[in-house]
Amino acid sequence: MRTLKLTLAYDGTDFVGWQRQAEGVSIQSLLEDALAAFEGGPVTVHGAGRTDAGVHALGQVASVALTASHPVETLQKALNAVLPAAVRVLGVLEEAPDFHARFSAVSKVYEYRIVNAPFVSPFLHRYAWHVPVHLDVGSMMEAASALTGTHDFAALQGSGGTVTSTTRTIEWIEWDGAQEPDRPMVVRFEGSGFLRHMVRNIVGTLVEIGVGRSAPSRIGAILASRDRAQAGPTAPPAGLFLVAVRYPQFR
Amino acid sequence: MRTLKLTLAYDGTDFVGWQRQAEGVSIQSLLEDALAAFEGGPVTVHGAGRTDAGVHALGQVASVALTASHPVETLQKALNAVLPAAVRVLGVLEEAPDFHARFSAVSKVYEYRIVNAPFVSPFLHRYAWHVPVHLDVGSMMEAASALTGTHDFAALQGSGGTVTSTTRTIEWIEWDGAQEPDRPMVVRFEGSGFLRHMVRNIVGTLVEIGVGRSAPSRIGAILASRDRAQAGPTAPPAGLFLVAVRYPQFR
Repeated sequence: MRTLKLTLAYDGTDFVGWQRQAEGVSIQSLLEDALAAFEGGPVTVHGAGRTDAGVHALGQVASVALTASHPVETLQKALNAVLPAAVRVLGVLEEAPDFHARFSAVSKVYEYRIVNAPFVSPFLHRYAWHVPVHLDVGSMMEAASALTGTHDFAALQGSGGTVTSTTRTIEWIEWDGAQEPDRPMVVRFEGSGFLRHMVRNIVGTLVEIGVGRSAPSRIGAILASRDRAQAGPTAPPAGLFLVAVRYPQFR
Repeated sequence: MRTLKLTLAYDGTDFVGWQRQAEGVSIQSLLEDALAAFEGGPVTVHGAGRTDAGVHALGQVASVALTASHPVETLQKALNAVLPAAVRVLGVLEEAPDFHARFSAVSKVYEYRIVNAPFVSPFLHRYAWHVPVHLDVGSMMEAASALTGTHDFAALQGSGGTVTSTTRTIEWIEWDGAQEPDRPMVVRFEGSGFLRHMVRNIVGTLVEIGVGRSAPSRIGAILASRDRAQAGPTAPPAGLFLVAVRYPQFR
Protein backbone atom coordinates (compact mmCIF):
# COMPACT_ATOMS: atom_id res chain seq x y z
CA MET A 1 0.00 0.00 0.00
CA ARG A 2 1.35 3.44 -0.97
CA THR A 3 0.00 6.75 0.32
CA LEU A 4 -0.23 9.30 -2.47
CA LYS A 5 -0.70 13.06 -2.29
CA LEU A 6 -2.60 14.55 -5.22
CA THR A 7 -2.61 18.30 -5.85
CA LEU A 8 -5.63 19.42 -7.85
CA ALA A 9 -7.07 22.46 -9.59
CA TYR A 10 -10.70 22.65 -10.65
CA ASP A 11 -13.29 24.98 -12.04
CA GLY A 12 -16.14 24.19 -9.64
CA THR A 13 -18.90 25.84 -11.72
CA ASP A 14 -20.49 22.65 -13.00
CA PHE A 15 -19.94 20.36 -9.98
CA VAL A 16 -21.87 19.67 -6.77
CA GLY A 17 -18.69 20.33 -4.76
CA TRP A 18 -15.80 18.24 -3.47
CA GLN A 19 -17.84 15.62 -1.62
CA ARG A 20 -19.65 12.70 -3.23
CA GLN A 21 -23.43 13.26 -3.25
CA ALA A 22 -26.40 11.08 -4.12
CA GLU A 23 -27.09 13.32 -7.14
CA GLY A 24 -24.72 15.21 -9.43
CA VAL A 25 -21.02 15.04 -10.21
CA SER A 26 -18.52 15.74 -7.41
CA ILE A 27 -14.74 16.09 -7.64
CA GLN A 28 -14.32 13.24 -5.14
CA SER A 29 -16.47 10.86 -7.21
CA LEU A 30 -14.60 11.73 -10.42
CA LEU A 31 -11.26 10.97 -8.74
CA GLU A 32 -12.42 7.84 -6.95
CA ASP A 33 -13.96 6.44 -10.14
CA ALA A 34 -10.82 7.24 -12.16
CA LEU A 35 -8.49 5.69 -9.53
CA ALA A 36 -10.65 2.58 -9.11
CA ALA A 37 -9.70 1.59 -12.66
CA PHE A 38 -6.01 1.38 -11.59
CA GLU A 39 -6.74 -0.30 -8.32
CA GLY A 40 -9.19 -2.83 -9.74
CA GLY A 41 -11.54 -2.14 -6.85
CA PRO A 42 -13.13 0.65 -4.83
CA VAL A 43 -10.92 3.55 -3.70
CA THR A 44 -11.52 6.25 -1.08
CA VAL A 45 -9.99 9.69 -1.64
CA HIS A 46 -9.73 12.19 1.24
CA GLY A 47 -9.77 15.89 0.42
CA ALA A 48 -8.15 18.61 2.54
CA GLY A 49 -11.13 20.92 2.23
CA ARG A 50 -14.74 20.05 1.39
CA THR A 51 -15.31 22.82 -1.15
CA ASP A 52 -19.00 23.54 -1.76
CA ALA A 53 -20.86 23.43 -5.06
CA GLY A 54 -19.51 26.12 -7.39
CA VAL A 55 -16.33 26.75 -5.36
CA HIS A 56 -13.02 26.48 -7.26
CA ALA A 57 -9.57 25.15 -6.37
CA LEU A 58 -6.09 26.22 -7.42
CA GLY A 59 -4.38 23.83 -5.01
CA GLN A 60 -6.76 21.37 -3.34
CA VAL A 61 -4.93 18.38 -1.85
CA ALA A 62 -6.21 14.81 -1.67
CA SER A 63 -4.73 11.66 -0.18
CA VAL A 64 -5.34 8.09 -1.24
CA ALA A 65 -3.90 4.67 -0.37
CA LEU A 66 -3.26 2.49 -3.43
CA THR A 67 -1.75 -0.95 -4.01
CA ALA A 68 -1.32 -0.12 -7.72
CA SER A 69 2.40 0.36 -8.33
CA HIS A 70 2.38 2.67 -11.37
CA PRO A 71 4.94 5.49 -11.31
CA VAL A 72 3.42 8.75 -10.04
CA GLU A 73 3.98 10.44 -13.42
CA THR A 74 1.98 7.68 -15.14
CA LEU A 75 -0.86 8.11 -12.65
CA GLN A 76 -0.92 11.87 -13.19
CA LYS A 77 -1.02 11.53 -16.99
CA ALA A 78 -3.64 8.81 -16.92
CA LEU A 79 -5.88 10.74 -14.51
CA ASN A 80 -5.65 13.89 -16.64
CA ALA A 81 -6.51 11.81 -19.70
CA VAL A 82 -9.79 10.56 -18.21
CA LEU A 83 -10.89 13.49 -16.01
CA PRO A 84 -12.93 16.33 -17.55
CA ALA A 85 -10.85 19.38 -18.58
CA ALA A 86 -12.41 21.32 -15.66
CA VAL A 87 -10.41 19.13 -13.21
CA ARG A 88 -6.61 18.78 -13.47
CA VAL A 89 -4.13 16.83 -11.39
CA LEU A 90 -1.22 19.27 -10.94
CA GLY A 91 1.00 16.72 -9.26
CA VAL A 92 1.20 13.29 -7.61
CA LEU A 93 3.73 12.52 -4.85
CA GLU A 94 4.36 9.42 -2.75
CA GLU A 95 4.02 10.45 0.90
CA ALA A 96 4.71 8.92 4.32
CA PRO A 97 2.06 6.30 5.27
CA ASP A 98 0.56 8.55 7.97
CA PHE A 99 -0.12 11.42 5.56
CA HIS A 100 -3.80 12.38 5.44
CA ALA A 101 -4.91 15.33 3.30
CA ARG A 102 -7.30 16.65 5.96
CA PHE A 103 -5.87 15.59 9.33
CA SER A 104 -2.24 16.40 8.45
CA ALA A 105 -3.05 19.90 7.15
CA VAL A 106 -1.62 22.70 9.31
CA SER A 107 -3.21 25.58 7.42
CA LYS A 108 -5.15 26.47 4.29
CA VAL A 109 -5.09 29.48 2.02
CA TYR A 110 -8.36 30.64 0.46
CA GLU A 111 -8.99 33.62 -1.75
CA TYR A 112 -12.20 35.39 -2.64
CA ARG A 113 -12.56 37.41 -5.85
CA ILE A 114 -14.99 40.31 -6.27
CA VAL A 115 -15.45 42.32 -9.45
CA ASN A 116 -16.31 45.79 -8.15
CA ALA A 117 -17.25 47.59 -11.36
CA PRO A 118 -20.46 48.38 -13.29
CA PHE A 119 -20.07 45.19 -15.34
CA VAL A 120 -17.90 42.06 -15.37
CA SER A 121 -15.57 40.84 -18.11
CA PRO A 122 -17.08 37.78 -19.89
CA PHE A 123 -13.91 35.92 -18.89
CA LEU A 124 -14.42 36.52 -15.16
CA HIS A 125 -18.14 36.11 -14.52
CA ARG A 126 -17.76 32.43 -13.61
CA TYR A 127 -14.92 33.25 -11.21
CA ALA A 128 -16.00 36.24 -9.15
CA TRP A 129 -18.86 37.87 -7.27
CA HIS A 130 -20.12 40.89 -9.17
CA VAL A 131 -20.73 43.83 -6.80
CA PRO A 132 -21.73 46.79 -9.02
CA VAL A 133 -22.05 49.28 -6.11
CA HIS A 134 -18.74 51.02 -5.31
CA LEU A 135 -16.98 49.46 -2.30
CA ASP A 136 -14.99 51.45 0.25
CA VAL A 137 -11.92 49.22 0.31
CA GLY A 138 -10.37 51.13 3.22
CA SER A 139 -13.30 50.30 5.52
CA MET A 140 -13.27 46.68 4.41
CA MET A 141 -9.54 46.34 5.13
CA GLU A 142 -9.97 47.98 8.53
CA ALA A 143 -12.74 45.50 9.39
CA ALA A 144 -10.74 42.56 8.06
CA SER A 145 -7.75 43.42 10.25
CA ALA A 146 -9.95 42.84 13.32
CA LEU A 147 -10.52 39.25 12.14
CA THR A 148 -6.89 38.13 12.15
CA GLY A 149 -5.71 36.19 15.17
CA THR A 150 -7.60 33.63 17.24
CA HIS A 151 -11.35 34.23 17.69
CA ASP A 152 -14.60 32.41 18.23
CA PHE A 153 -16.07 32.59 14.72
CA ALA A 154 -19.52 31.15 15.63
CA ALA A 155 -21.25 34.25 14.18
CA LEU A 156 -19.57 33.52 10.83
CA GLN A 157 -20.36 29.81 10.66
CA GLY A 158 -22.96 28.62 8.16
CA SER A 159 -25.82 26.44 9.32
CA GLY A 160 -25.08 22.74 9.14
CA GLY A 161 -21.63 23.04 10.70
CA THR A 162 -20.90 20.02 12.90
CA VAL A 163 -17.76 21.03 14.80
CA THR A 164 -17.53 21.12 18.59
CA SER A 165 -15.36 24.25 18.84
CA THR A 166 -15.90 27.34 16.69
CA THR A 167 -12.57 28.91 17.66
CA ARG A 168 -10.20 29.32 14.71
CA THR A 169 -7.02 31.28 13.91
CA ILE A 170 -6.61 33.47 10.83
CA GLU A 171 -2.86 34.02 10.35
CA TRP A 172 -3.13 36.84 7.83
CA ILE A 173 -5.45 38.55 5.37
CA GLU A 174 -4.03 40.04 2.17
CA TRP A 175 -5.74 42.42 -0.29
CA ASP A 176 -5.57 43.40 -3.92
CA GLY A 177 -7.98 46.30 -4.08
CA ALA A 178 -8.58 46.41 -7.86
CA GLN A 179 -11.96 47.86 -8.92
CA GLU A 180 -12.07 47.11 -12.66
CA PRO A 181 -14.33 45.02 -14.95
CA ASP A 182 -11.46 42.76 -15.99
CA ARG A 183 -9.46 42.57 -12.76
CA PRO A 184 -10.98 41.29 -9.52
CA MET A 185 -10.47 42.60 -6.04
CA VAL A 186 -8.85 39.67 -4.19
CA VAL A 187 -9.02 38.95 -0.46
CA ARG A 188 -6.68 36.12 0.56
CA PHE A 189 -6.75 34.35 3.94
CA GLU A 190 -4.44 31.85 5.61
CA GLY A 191 -5.84 30.05 8.61
CA SER A 192 -5.48 26.95 10.73
CA GLY A 193 -8.98 25.89 9.76
CA PHE A 194 -12.17 27.37 8.48
CA LEU A 195 -15.74 26.69 9.60
CA ARG A 196 -18.45 25.84 7.10
CA HIS A 197 -19.09 28.91 4.85
CA MET A 198 -16.74 30.96 7.07
CA VAL A 199 -14.82 32.66 4.24
CA ARG A 200 -18.00 33.42 2.29
CA ASN A 201 -19.69 34.77 5.43
CA ILE A 202 -16.66 36.95 6.22
CA VAL A 203 -16.72 38.32 2.66
CA GLY A 204 -20.47 38.93 2.79
CA THR A 205 -19.97 40.83 6.06
CA LEU A 206 -17.05 42.86 4.64
CA VAL A 207 -19.14 43.83 1.59
CA GLU A 208 -21.94 45.09 3.89
CA ILE A 209 -19.28 47.31 5.43
CA GLY A 210 -17.86 48.27 2.00
CA VAL A 211 -21.25 49.54 0.77
CA GLY A 212 -21.78 51.44 4.03
CA ARG A 213 -24.61 49.37 5.49
CA SER A 214 -22.41 48.50 8.48
CA ALA A 215 -19.37 50.09 10.17
CA PRO A 216 -15.89 48.50 10.36
CA SER A 217 -16.02 48.86 14.15
CA ARG A 218 -18.98 46.44 14.30
CA ILE A 219 -16.75 43.40 13.64
CA GLY A 220 -15.90 43.02 17.34
CA ALA A 221 -19.56 43.05 18.37
CA ILE A 222 -20.46 40.59 15.60
CA LEU A 223 -17.80 38.11 16.79
CA ALA A 224 -18.81 38.59 20.46
CA SER A 225 -22.49 37.95 19.65
CA ARG A 226 -21.76 34.42 18.36
CA ASP A 227 -25.02 35.04 16.41
CA ARG A 228 -25.05 34.30 12.67
CA ALA A 229 -27.87 36.85 12.22
CA GLN A 230 -25.53 39.69 13.27
CA ALA A 231 -23.15 39.09 10.36
CA GLY A 232 -23.68 39.76 6.65
CA PRO A 233 -25.03 37.40 3.98
CA THR A 234 -23.09 34.46 2.54
CA ALA A 235 -21.11 35.56 -0.53
CA PRO A 236 -21.79 33.42 -3.64
CA PRO A 237 -19.60 30.33 -4.24
CA ALA A 238 -18.28 31.45 -7.66
CA GLY A 239 -15.81 33.92 -6.09
CA LEU A 240 -14.15 31.42 -3.73
CA PHE A 241 -10.90 29.56 -4.47
CA LEU A 242 -9.03 27.06 -2.28
CA VAL A 243 -5.50 28.23 -3.11
CA ALA A 244 -3.18 25.94 -1.13
CA VAL A 245 -2.94 23.56 1.80
CA ARG A 246 0.19 23.55 4.00
CA TYR A 247 1.87 20.43 5.38
CA PRO A 248 5.18 21.72 6.80
CA GLN A 249 5.97 18.34 8.44
CA PHE A 250 5.65 16.52 5.10
CA ARG A 251 7.52 17.22 1.90
CA MET B 1 -30.23 59.18 -36.85
CA ARG B 2 -27.13 58.78 -34.65
CA THR B 3 -24.16 56.58 -35.50
CA LEU B 4 -22.96 54.68 -32.45
CA LYS B 5 -19.71 52.83 -31.85
CA LEU B 6 -20.01 49.83 -29.52
CA THR B 7 -16.91 48.19 -28.06
CA LEU B 8 -17.52 44.58 -27.06
CA ALA B 9 -15.89 41.67 -25.26
CA TYR B 10 -17.18 38.14 -25.55
CA ASP B 11 -16.40 34.57 -24.65
CA GLY B 12 -17.08 32.95 -28.03
CA THR B 13 -17.20 29.36 -26.72
CA ASP B 14 -20.96 28.90 -26.91
CA PHE B 15 -21.75 31.02 -29.98
CA VAL B 16 -21.80 30.36 -33.74
CA GLY B 17 -19.54 33.41 -34.26
CA TRP B 18 -20.07 37.11 -34.90
CA GLN B 19 -22.34 36.79 -37.92
CA ARG B 20 -26.04 35.96 -37.83
CA GLN B 21 -26.67 32.38 -39.02
CA ALA B 22 -29.79 30.39 -39.83
CA GLU B 23 -29.08 28.16 -36.80
CA GLY B 24 -27.51 28.95 -33.44
CA VAL B 25 -26.86 32.11 -31.45
CA SER B 26 -24.51 34.73 -32.94
CA ILE B 27 -23.15 37.89 -31.29
CA GLN B 28 -24.65 40.00 -34.09
CA SER B 29 -28.13 38.54 -33.57
CA LEU B 30 -27.95 39.07 -29.80
CA LEU B 31 -27.01 42.75 -30.29
CA GLU B 32 -29.51 43.37 -33.08
CA ASP B 33 -32.34 41.81 -31.10
CA ALA B 34 -31.42 43.79 -27.97
CA LEU B 35 -31.14 47.10 -29.88
CA ALA B 36 -34.39 46.51 -31.79
CA ALA B 37 -36.26 46.90 -28.49
CA PHE B 38 -34.94 50.49 -28.20
CA GLU B 39 -35.49 51.31 -31.83
CA GLY B 40 -38.96 49.81 -32.03
CA GLY B 41 -38.02 48.14 -35.29
CA PRO B 42 -35.31 46.10 -37.01
CA VAL B 43 -31.68 47.20 -36.54
CA THR B 44 -28.54 46.23 -38.45
CA VAL B 45 -25.24 46.08 -36.57
CA HIS B 46 -21.94 46.03 -38.48
CA GLY B 47 -18.95 44.31 -36.85
CA ALA B 48 -15.31 45.19 -37.50
CA GLY B 49 -14.28 41.55 -37.74
CA ARG B 50 -16.43 38.50 -38.47
CA THR B 51 -15.04 36.29 -35.72
CA ASP B 52 -15.72 32.59 -36.31
CA ALA B 53 -17.56 30.19 -34.01
CA GLY B 54 -15.59 29.74 -30.77
CA VAL B 55 -13.37 32.81 -31.31
CA HIS B 56 -13.29 35.38 -28.49
CA ALA B 57 -13.12 39.18 -28.39
CA LEU B 58 -11.51 41.57 -25.95
CA GLY B 59 -12.26 44.63 -28.11
CA GLN B 60 -14.54 43.90 -31.05
CA VAL B 61 -16.11 47.07 -32.48
CA ALA B 62 -19.59 47.38 -33.96
CA SER B 63 -21.40 50.33 -35.56
CA VAL B 64 -25.13 50.93 -35.67
CA ALA B 65 -27.41 53.78 -36.78
CA LEU B 66 -30.24 54.48 -34.33
CA THR B 67 -33.03 57.04 -34.10
CA ALA B 68 -33.50 56.18 -30.39
CA SER B 69 -32.16 59.14 -28.40
CA HIS B 70 -31.22 57.47 -25.10
CA PRO B 71 -27.93 58.63 -23.55
CA VAL B 72 -25.05 56.29 -24.45
CA GLU B 73 -24.59 55.30 -20.77
CA THR B 74 -28.25 54.22 -20.62
CA LEU B 75 -27.84 52.13 -23.76
CA GLN B 76 -24.71 50.44 -22.37
CA LYS B 77 -26.39 49.59 -19.07
CA ALA B 78 -29.56 48.35 -20.72
CA LEU B 79 -27.66 46.19 -23.23
CA ASN B 80 -25.56 44.64 -20.45
CA ALA B 81 -28.75 43.94 -18.50
CA VAL B 82 -30.30 41.89 -21.32
CA LEU B 83 -27.26 40.30 -22.99
CA PRO B 84 -25.90 37.00 -21.63
CA ALA B 85 -22.94 37.38 -19.22
CA ALA B 86 -20.66 35.95 -21.95
CA VAL B 87 -21.14 39.17 -23.98
CA ARG B 88 -20.40 42.60 -22.48
CA VAL B 89 -20.64 46.08 -23.94
CA LEU B 90 -17.45 47.79 -22.73
CA GLY B 91 -18.44 51.19 -24.08
CA VAL B 92 -20.83 53.12 -26.33
CA LEU B 93 -19.77 56.35 -28.11
CA GLU B 94 -21.59 58.62 -30.53
CA GLU B 95 -19.48 58.80 -33.69
CA ALA B 96 -19.41 60.85 -36.91
CA PRO B 97 -22.18 59.78 -39.34
CA ASP B 98 -19.69 58.22 -41.78
CA PHE B 99 -18.20 55.88 -39.13
CA HIS B 100 -18.49 52.21 -40.11
CA ALA B 101 -16.96 49.54 -37.87
CA ARG B 102 -15.57 47.53 -40.78
CA PHE B 103 -14.89 50.04 -43.57
CA SER B 104 -13.41 52.72 -41.29
CA ALA B 105 -11.01 50.30 -39.57
CA VAL B 106 -7.35 50.97 -40.32
CA SER B 107 -5.95 47.96 -38.50
CA LYS B 108 -6.83 45.15 -36.15
CA VAL B 109 -4.96 43.45 -33.33
CA TYR B 110 -5.46 39.73 -32.80
CA GLU B 111 -3.80 37.44 -30.31
CA TYR B 112 -3.51 33.69 -30.22
CA ARG B 113 -2.97 31.79 -26.95
CA ILE B 114 -1.28 28.39 -26.74
CA VAL B 115 -0.76 26.42 -23.55
CA ASN B 116 2.52 24.60 -24.16
CA ALA B 117 2.69 22.26 -21.17
CA PRO B 118 1.74 18.64 -20.40
CA PHE B 119 -1.70 19.77 -19.19
CA VAL B 120 -3.83 22.92 -19.13
CA SER B 121 -5.20 24.80 -16.13
CA PRO B 122 -8.99 24.25 -15.80
CA PHE B 123 -9.33 28.04 -16.02
CA LEU B 124 -7.63 28.26 -19.44
CA HIS B 125 -8.88 25.29 -21.43
CA ARG B 126 -11.70 27.29 -23.02
CA TYR B 127 -9.28 30.07 -23.97
CA ALA B 128 -6.22 28.42 -25.48
CA TRP B 129 -4.95 25.71 -27.80
CA HIS B 130 -3.33 22.93 -25.78
CA VAL B 131 -0.08 21.79 -27.44
CA PRO B 132 1.46 19.20 -25.07
CA VAL B 133 4.60 18.63 -27.21
CA HIS B 134 7.42 21.05 -26.35
CA LEU B 135 7.63 23.95 -28.82
CA ASP B 136 10.90 25.53 -29.94
CA VAL B 137 9.85 29.15 -29.44
CA GLY B 138 13.05 30.47 -31.05
CA SER B 139 12.25 28.76 -34.37
CA MET B 140 8.65 29.96 -34.23
CA MET B 141 9.73 33.57 -33.64
CA GLU B 142 12.25 33.36 -36.46
CA ALA B 143 9.54 32.10 -38.83
CA ALA B 144 7.06 34.72 -37.63
CA SER B 145 9.50 37.56 -38.32
CA ALA B 146 9.42 36.58 -42.01
CA LEU B 147 5.64 37.22 -42.01
CA THR B 148 5.75 40.89 -41.00
CA GLY B 149 5.43 43.45 -43.79
CA THR B 150 3.34 43.28 -46.96
CA HIS B 151 2.92 39.84 -48.54
CA ASP B 152 0.52 37.81 -50.62
CA PHE B 153 -1.01 35.59 -47.93
CA ALA B 154 -2.98 33.33 -50.34
CA ALA B 155 -1.28 30.22 -48.89
CA LEU B 156 -2.61 31.17 -45.46
CA GLN B 157 -6.20 31.93 -46.48
CA GLY B 158 -8.92 29.47 -45.45
CA SER B 159 -11.28 28.08 -48.06
CA GLY B 160 -14.43 30.16 -48.50
CA GLY B 161 -12.54 33.48 -48.60
CA THR B 162 -14.24 35.84 -51.07
CA VAL B 163 -11.72 38.70 -51.39
CA THR B 164 -10.24 39.79 -54.73
CA SER B 165 -6.73 40.53 -53.41
CA THR B 166 -4.91 38.30 -50.92
CA THR B 167 -2.17 40.87 -50.22
CA ARG B 168 -2.11 42.08 -46.63
CA THR B 169 0.26 43.91 -44.31
CA ILE B 170 1.25 42.66 -40.85
CA GLU B 171 2.68 45.65 -38.96
CA TRP B 172 4.22 43.70 -36.12
CA ILE B 173 4.15 40.36 -34.30
CA GLU B 174 4.76 40.24 -30.52
CA TRP B 175 5.48 37.18 -28.34
CA ASP B 176 5.10 36.06 -24.78
CA GLY B 177 6.90 32.74 -24.78
CA ALA B 178 5.48 31.24 -21.55
CA GLN B 179 5.40 27.42 -21.43
CA GLU B 180 3.36 26.73 -18.29
CA PRO B 181 0.01 25.02 -17.53
CA ASP B 182 -1.49 28.21 -16.11
CA ARG B 183 0.08 30.84 -18.37
CA PRO B 184 -0.37 30.78 -22.11
CA MET B 185 2.19 31.54 -24.79
CA VAL B 186 0.72 34.57 -26.59
CA VAL B 187 1.37 35.61 -30.20
CA ARG B 188 -0.08 39.06 -30.96
CA PHE B 189 -0.47 40.53 -34.47
CA GLU B 190 -1.41 43.95 -35.76
CA GLY B 191 -2.34 44.16 -39.41
CA SER B 192 -4.23 46.23 -41.96
CA GLY B 193 -6.56 43.33 -42.58
CA PHE B 194 -6.65 39.59 -42.18
CA LEU B 195 -7.94 36.98 -44.63
CA ARG B 196 -10.40 34.30 -43.53
CA HIS B 197 -8.67 31.99 -40.99
CA MET B 198 -5.36 33.77 -41.65
CA VAL B 199 -4.28 34.11 -38.01
CA ARG B 200 -5.26 30.53 -37.20
CA ASN B 201 -3.45 29.25 -40.32
CA ILE B 202 -0.34 31.27 -39.41
CA VAL B 203 -0.39 29.81 -35.89
CA GLY B 204 -0.94 26.26 -37.21
CA THR B 205 2.06 26.76 -39.51
CA LEU B 206 4.22 28.18 -36.70
CA VAL B 207 3.37 25.21 -34.46
CA GLU B 208 4.46 22.79 -37.24
CA ILE B 209 7.78 24.64 -37.13
CA GLY B 210 7.85 24.68 -33.32
CA VAL B 211 7.52 20.89 -33.08
CA GLY B 212 10.22 20.44 -35.76
CA ARG B 213 8.04 19.11 -38.58
CA SER B 214 8.98 22.11 -40.71
CA ALA B 215 11.90 24.60 -40.78
CA PRO B 216 11.60 28.36 -40.10
CA SER B 217 13.21 29.02 -43.50
CA ARG B 218 10.26 27.41 -45.27
CA ILE B 219 7.98 30.42 -44.60
CA GLY B 220 9.24 32.23 -47.73
CA ALA B 221 8.51 29.22 -49.94
CA ILE B 222 5.08 28.74 -48.36
CA LEU B 223 4.11 32.36 -49.09
CA ALA B 224 5.52 32.16 -52.64
CA SER B 225 3.56 28.97 -53.39
CA ARG B 226 0.19 30.72 -52.81
CA ASP B 227 -0.91 27.12 -52.07
CA ARG B 228 -2.89 26.46 -48.87
CA ALA B 229 -1.65 22.84 -48.87
CA GLN B 230 1.95 24.04 -48.28
CA ALA B 231 1.08 25.67 -44.96
CA GLY B 232 0.20 24.03 -41.63
CA PRO B 233 -3.24 23.13 -40.26
CA THR B 234 -5.78 25.67 -38.98
CA ALA B 235 -5.29 26.23 -35.24
CA PRO B 236 -8.50 25.76 -33.18
CA PRO B 237 -10.78 28.77 -32.62
CA ALA B 238 -10.62 28.67 -28.78
CA GLY B 239 -7.13 30.24 -28.75
CA LEU B 240 -8.01 33.28 -30.89
CA PHE B 241 -8.95 36.71 -29.51
CA LEU B 242 -9.81 39.89 -31.43
CA VAL B 243 -8.02 42.36 -29.15
CA ALA B 244 -8.64 45.79 -30.67
CA VAL B 245 -9.63 47.67 -33.82
CA ARG B 246 -7.92 50.96 -34.69
CA TYR B 247 -9.69 54.01 -36.10
CA PRO B 248 -7.06 56.78 -35.91
CA GLN B 249 -9.23 59.22 -37.90
CA PHE B 250 -12.12 58.85 -35.44
CA ARG B 251 -12.13 59.45 -31.73
